[in-house]
Amino acid sequence: MEIFYAKQILGDEIFLDQEESAHCVRVLRHKTGDEISVVDGQGTMMRCRLTDDSPKGACATVLERFPGWGGHPYSLTMAVCPTKNNDRFEWFVEKATEVGVDQIVPVIGERSERRVFKPERSHKIALSAMKQSLKAQLPIVAEPVSVKDFIKGTTLTAGGDRPLPLPAASRPYPGKCQRVGAVATTATQEIKMICYCFEGETLRRSIEDVLAEAAEGANITIMIGPEGDFSPEEARLAVENGYIPVHLGPSRLRTETAAVTAATAVYLHYIK
Amino acid sequence: MEIFYAKQILGDEIFLDQEESAHCVRVLRHKTGDEISVVDGQGTMMRCRLTDDSPKGACATVLERFPGWGGHPYSLTMAVCPTKNNDRFEWFVEKATEVGVDQIVPVIGERSERRVFKPERSHKIALSAMKQSLKAQLPIVAEPVSVKDFIKGTTLTAGGDRPLPLPAASRPYPGKCQRVGAVATTATQEIKMICYCFEGETLRRSIEDVLAEAAEGANITIMIGPEGDFSPEEARLAVENGYIPVHLGPSRLRTETAAVTAATAVYLHYIK
Repeated sequence: MEIFYAKQILGDEIFLDQEESAHCVRVLRHKTGDEISVVDGQGTMMRCRLTDDSPKGACATVLERFPGWGGHPYSLTMAVCPTKNNDRFEWFVEKATEVGVDQIVPVIGERSERRVFKPERSHKIALSAMKQSLKAQLPIVAEPVSVKDFIKGTTLTAGGDRPLPLPAASRPYPGKCQRVGAVATTATQEIKMICYCFEGETLRRSIEDVLAEAAEGANITIMIGPEGDFSPEEARLAVENGYIPVHLGPSRLRTETAAVTAATAVYLHYIK
Repeated sequence: MEIFYAKQILGDEIFLDQEESAHCVRVLRHKTGDEISVVDGQGTMMRCRLTDDSPKGACATVLERFPGWGGHPYSLTMAVCPTKNNDRFEWFVEKATEVGVDQIVPVIGERSERRVFKPERSHKIALSAMKQSLKAQLPIVAEPVSVKDFIKGTTLTAGGDRPLPLPAASRPYPGKCQRVGAVATTATQEIKMICYCFEGETLRRSIEDVLAEAAEGANITIMIGPEGDFSPEEARLAVENGYIPVHLGPSRLRTETAAVTAATAVYLHYIK
């Protein structure tokens, strides 16, 4: 199954950009009148009929909408320190998107070796992973912020060519089944976790132990530190701001492996 | 912490090969008399004293042994169809090693596009991931076999420069804590799972549901199919041979993502 992504949707008219139009018309040879599947990146898949097969700007009209298509029954924000090797962070972005994530925030810690991050490439990787894994919601890759600003709840800016994040509560319900007209639900339960390696003054719980309390629709945030771990000050600030200190078990994991393991733990909790 | 890998161990004398010797002596500037940490790839870490700092063939004598160092309380065999893109399979090898795996078997399915696989590179990746993640047991990367032969229990050959796999029962107990002289335990519980996408005649259970029954020391085997999935015949043969058909939840995952997700599910089950 091939899906297309459209940013521009006016009522029941959808407009594919040049890249998507070329792929649809030149590569896949779709003609006016063909049925195609289009996602809006906000959680809705639309069965459409192609009304204009121009390879530079194809248009289609919506026949049926499937809100929450390929979604997940939780809202997950992964705040991860960019790795020295960019490929490793981008690999995390791809895998987290396949499994199911809502927001990816590159956070710069006091001990981060990499202090500059451009979200554009990660945004493109999230886009193709969304299409490849048949999801309708495009994870937001935010502009980088410092670990401390993120903990203090600074307003995030979406990186790449993306609208600003919707508050979790107003997002369409990402149900497992693809129901038409699924209604929005409010993710009341807030669970914030910080993974670090050193034993601080606070004893850490296992992520499995914490997730055992996560209910459907929970709003989950997980912070993963840089190669050099979070600083004790960052960890303390997080705990003061309601973050639960967690560990990911006895294995010593790389930053990107820890991030994917944590996102996978959330995903697996909800398929039990 | 820096660890070295030694294949050649005679009693209390360990011999580093040329690569490890050069790294130990030239790069890290270790001199005769220094204490170094060496793993045997069989599950034991040894605290050693360097007795010969030759960069071509360094020798050390064992001061203390830590069996089951960095190990895991289960035995896991991942039988995974090689991906079209080799990097993706190698990425799985690295991540599974970091998390904890015992055997990786490249299996060739009827629908596999990639029918040739050389274990040497994957073996090297497992070796560096073992050292990087501070484990003492080197996962075995076997020579490829067909899916049907693997299901029928053909004898496996270790790929790369490796001894043949030990039967799980005779492996030192991979305890989480690093106990000296930990005794071997027998993994009596056998759990075999096959992940596939189509709904066959048998209803699939979720991997979480099956793992809920896994006890400490369980001997777990998980099969992951190629991009084109297993053939119905392969799935039927697996079920006839005691494999439980499982799914990994609603997300449509790439082969290597499915493999890492399954290995992570096993790892997370044991840190609860």
